[in-house]
Amino acid sequence: MTGAAGALAIGIDIGGTKVAGGVVDESGRVRARARRSTPHRSTEPRVVEDTIVEVVEALLADTSGDVVAVGIGAAGFVAADRATVVFAPHLSWRDEPLREALQRRVALPIVVDNDANAAAWAEWRHGAARGESHVVMVTLGTGIGGALLVDGEVLRGRFGIAGEFGHMQVVPGGHRCECGNRGCWEQYASGNALVREARSLMQAGSPLATDLLDRVGGDASALTGPLITEAAQQGDPTATELLADVGLWLGVGIAGLAAAFDPGTFVIGGGVSAAGELLLGPARDAYRRHLTGRGYRPEAQVVAARLGNEAGLIGAADLARTAARPGS
Amino acid sequence: MTGAAGALAIGIDIGGTKVAGGVVDESGRVRARARRSTPHRSTEPRVVEDTIVEVVEALLADTSGDVVAVGIGAAGFVAADRATVVFAPHLSWRDEPLREALQRRVALPIVVDNDANAAAWAEWRHGAARGESHVVMVTLGTGIGGALLVDGEVLRGRFGIAGEFGHMQVVPGGHRCECGNRGCWEQYASGNALVREARSLMQAGSPLATDLLDRVGGDASALTGPLITEAAQQGDPTATELLADVGLWLGVGIAGLAAAFDPGTFVIGGGVSAAGELLLGPARDAYRRHLTGRGYRPEAQVVAARLGNEAGLIGAADLARTAARPGS
Repeated sequence: MTGAAGALAIGIDIGGTKVAGGVVDESGRVRARARRSTPHRSTEPRVVEDTIVEVVEALLADTSGDVVAVGIGAAGFVAADRATVVFAPHLSWRDEPLREALQRRVALPIVVDNDANAAAWAEWRHGAARGESHVVMVTLGTGIGGALLVDGEVLRGRFGIAGEFGHMQVVPGGHRCECGNRGCWEQYASGNALVREARSLMQAGSPLATDLLDRVGGDASALTGPLITEAAQQGDPTATELLADVGLWLGVGIAGLAAAFDPGTFVIGGGVSAAGELLLGPARDAYRRHLTGRGYRPEAQVVAARLGNEAGLIGAADLARTAARPGS
Repeated sequence: MTGAAGALAIGIDIGGTKVAGGVVDESGRVRARARRSTPHRSTEPRVVEDTIVEVVEALLADTSGDVVAVGIGAAGFVAADRATVVFAPHLSWRDEPLREALQRRVALPIVVDNDANAAAWAEWRHGAARGESHVVMVTLGTGIGGALLVDGEVLRGRFGIAGEFGHMQVVPGGHRCECGNRGCWEQYASGNALVREARSLMQAGSPLATDLLDRVGGDASALTGPLITEAAQQGDPTATELLADVGLWLGVGIAGLAAAFDPGTFVIGGGVSAAGELLLGPARDAYRRHLTGRGYRPEAQVVAARLGNEAGLIGAADLARTAARPGS
């Protein structure tokens, strides 16, 4: 490890189907990038580990400065030891000792954290939540990621797995979730929810879905969240409604989180947040309508994440650098 | 103020219809008690203030030792200044400068806090949550009170009003709540919910309600939560079912809070918790059934509060003493 002021760190973001990495400097700038696909929901953690090592090696080969640590952000429940992925529904992992496995193959200190914790940390250090004492981060991707920050510390909970807002029940007996429950928030406010609802409209043969169906050549299975966002941005009223429905559920959910946690700022990130005000406008309306004590209390602001898709890897790098060099 | 080791503090618990006070020593023991009724949901805060002053004076007259501070626990949203009650649906208060009003009439330092924060603090200092780093307190009374403690600090949120778990929506379009919303958790897991459901069964003319109806001489309006608990304890199957239904909703809700905050211990207090295992048994079953990642994660324990109805005033006294004498 080096004590140099400009120390670099590698951040890795593991999603359901890809490993994205970057070399990040202390100002949060990404200086080099690498990315590899992984098989969807690999039941073999080794495949993901190999991919991570590959990405780290590619980044190290590409970097001249001092790299002091590697931070991994994983879409799953990471234990308080910041080494083990306890449960990752989207990766089919169970009690996976990720740090130990990687540490045998990478000669730098490694920290594993939840991907939303990493993104929240990045937004607080370099993005939309700078200067905020009480932050709730909600990332809308395949599912919902969440994190809590108070006075510049991630609240990890007793066992390290706080912030799993996406698995709070919002609809009794509602849609089945990958986590095994029904009615989880992420079944209503996520990229998966957006696509499911659009496909359901197509399968119902609704004329409202004609424009969307045309965009995928009549193949509902080819529909994706980004395609729906693009259609909405081009004025398709159905795509706009579908995003507004997700926004409504986002707003209801964050109103509940405001009751429970009373943050000063909600930061909304993840792939779906690329829809911008098409999502956030309806979310803010629903938030204000469902906030308990509304009109008699200060209200948290609801803002878009600023670091986009790279928040996770920027935050993971920064958390790893901080752990490797406390006080930096 | 005195620096004596045995300094006493007065704790006051303001509910919807009563003001209860006690002189509390540093070990959490209540040495003297006073209690006065107030008109239900008084729109005149002055009436409640007068009652508080009366209770404080009665306690001071009754006490020989040094009293160093007065702590008030109020069933409402208390601002971060710990002086103002921002919103109290059960008291019909709005932006009430309670500390200032009382400070003119009481010659001791005063701290105002949320009643559930006070109860959680008491359970952590002297009760069911001693030694626990991550506590979620849920009190089931008229409504639901809630509090979060991490490493011996109450998490108050950005504006002081965290912990209002009772106003998280659990049923879209559900029962109307005093807070102005629909489907709030406290409409399903509280003393009010228990009584509402029992009355609804009576009004439906169900033979299942015969025993309960007999207990109130045929007058559904005379039914109370404690009467239902008593009936259940004596083996009435309907009362037992009604408590189990509240327990189910309690379990679903704390499973959601476990996803969000990942505590090590849930402490269940408030009047309804007097039902003991008739409530907590079904709650634990539902909690385990609805916990995301169950089987793959450590699980928080769910325990009954130990300080009973006096947790609020014991905690309020202790918080006030701590504020008046930091380091004690």
